[in-house]
Amino acid sequence: MKNREIILTKRPDGEPTREHLQIREAAMPQPAEGEVLTRLLYVSVDPYMRGRMNEGKSYIEPFKLNQPMEGGAIAEVISSNAEALKKGDIVTGSLPWREYVSLPAADLRKIDPSLGPITTSLHILGMTGLTAYFGLMDIGEPQEGETVVVSGAAGAVGSAVVQIATIAGARVVGIAGTDEKVQFVKQLGADTVINYRTEDVGQTLAKACPNGIDVYFDNVGGPISDEVYPLLNKFARVVQCGAISSYNKKEDTGPRIQQYLIKSSALIKGFTVGDYRERFTEGFRHLSKWLGEGKLTYEETITEGFDNIPEAFFGLFKGENVGKQLVKVNDPSGK
Amino acid sequence: MKNREIILTKRPDGEPTREHLQIREAAMPQPAEGEVLTRLLYVSVDPYMRGRMNEGKSYIEPFKLNQPMEGGAIAEVISSNAEALKKGDIVTGSLPWREYVSLPAADLRKIDPSLGPITTSLHILGMTGLTAYFGLMDIGEPQEGETVVVSGAAGAVGSAVVQIATIAGARVVGIAGTDEKVQFVKQLGADTVINYRTEDVGQTLAKACPNGIDVYFDNVGGPISDEVYPLLNKFARVVQCGAISSYNKKEDTGPRIQQYLIKSSALIKGFTVGDYRERFTEGFRHLSKWLGEGKLTYEETITEGFDNIPEAFFGLFKGENVGKQLVKVNDPSGK
Repeated sequence: MKNREIILTKRPDGEPTREHLQIREAAMPQPAEGEVLTRLLYVSVDPYMRGRMNEGKSYIEPFKLNQPMEGGAIAEVISSNAEALKKGDIVTGSLPWREYVSLPAADLRKIDPSLGPITTSLHILGMTGLTAYFGLMDIGEPQEGETVVVSGAAGAVGSAVVQIATIAGARVVGIAGTDEKVQFVKQLGADTVINYRTEDVGQTLAKACPNGIDVYFDNVGGPISDEVYPLLNKFARVVQCGAISSYNKKEDTGPRIQQYLIKSSALIKGFTVGDYRERFTEGFRHLSKWLGEGKLTYEETITEGFDNIPEAFFGLFKGENVGKQLVKVNDPSGK
Repeated sequence: MKNREIILTKRPDGEPTREHLQIREAAMPQPAEGEVLTRLLYVSVDPYMRGRMNEGKSYIEPFKLNQPMEGGAIAEVISSNAEALKKGDIVTGSLPWREYVSLPAADLRKIDPSLGPITTSLHILGMTGLTAYFGLMDIGEPQEGETVVVSGAAGAVGSAVVQIATIAGARVVGIAGTDEKVQFVKQLGADTVINYRTEDVGQTLAKACPNGIDVYFDNVGGPISDEVYPLLNKFARVVQCGAISSYNKKEDTGPRIQQYLIKSSALIKGFTVGDYRERFTEGFRHLSKWLGEGKLTYEETITEGFDNIPEAFFGLFKGENVGKQLVKVNDPSGK
């Protein structure tokens, strides 16, 4: 058995490319006491990882040079030196981009495959679902009949937000970047979906929001958001979840927004899902209930093969994925 | 008796000047049933009035062309046709910039001169005091030992914020634009005060805030605020009270701030004092108590003469005033 890993060899200035990542062979690890040896099944690639490629403090440690990238993943226990997990268990956690890894069992969560396909633990029943749930419900607080605008509406977080806002009785306007994504977001329950690449966002948004905007769930920042601020209603709430349009820019300027906030007594709040760690159980309970009732659906874009993890990650910044972007590395050995 | 008023003749593009305002004679009004005839004593000039000189919707109606400017003022009742007020009463309310005016008694509040100098009803015991109180306490929520940064710290609102934050047990860092203002803000209890015209704000601020910034009470926006966002602590609160550096600009761009909010899970909230109308009594109670105990002081810059109201207003945008800028038009007739 050979082992391989994907390491960060150079910190990108702009968009990440193959020159910043390298696939190399790695030693085959032995599980110490309390550890399990796992085989990688699925890897989640996420926009926030771009921030970890930079040096310097953020809400999360930067990736180390010449060390593997890491993030949400699903793996199978192939041998266990821990009480809590046994051979064949399917687990999730934050794993390095490495085919085989030994980890403390305590750092992993066992997936119950009866709740749905195991990949849901990387999106709708995982971090992106919880991100959508807490950002929207705790910061956005959508009320029945209010107008909720969602940017990046076809993404993993955005598509969950569209559906949860619909469940909350709000009128939802989505913004996405291809006709395929627009169709997908409409099917999720959005009243209007704007293609920001082919339509004038400012004009279309004003038309789609005749009563103004009460909640803006923002995944993208940049020029799309610039069109939203002037339409904010009195006491509007902006959920600042992401700003993918800025992640690859060293300097990014735009219209100052302070005056819009004053005029509308509006609020912008940034957050990361970890802020809600103590309430994860509440989030999982709602999400799995809605999923079981058919009120929540999801889309996955699955790229195949360990070698293709970098390209799947780069594709996020080109807007290639519909719903959650995953990479399938292996099938569980039972299949 | 002659009557005069100051009218808006032209909407400014940038800084307001004499070409946008005109002093003209006006008819002497007669108080109708329920009204009083008043004589202007003091006028408050405020940065927010610049916004009302523009066309188009904001949180408050724009001034009308060829009609008088208006705002907070103190006047004396010289004849009354209303039960609630009598000749000689000193009143405050929103009044046109006109020497004599007839108004419904219900639109005026009688000042109790035993609480302090009557001019305090235009600042520390009026709108600017309430603005400082509610913005800081309701949005900023300073905790003991936290670091609070205040921009425009020598202004009417800022100087009250510095003192209230100090009362709350926070460590206060002020930003102001002249050495005289810096001295004034230090006397109010600020730990460090930065002169943004002579010092490098980014460097000095980082040095003055070794534990980061928990609360930023922002009156100015623009390049000064740009230096604050990178220093925000986890769960920081930015009170967006004003953005005077943007008011005279048609377009104003700067670094996008969304990523800072995400990194720190920080919040920015705009507001206007009217949002707290139902809690004004609570605010007055605290402010007058602290004033009586000597925990709150204030500074006034008083320009003399009706003719000089425009210049006093223009001076706000040149940073000329320390504390509250007022114009004294007349002494009460008893004096």
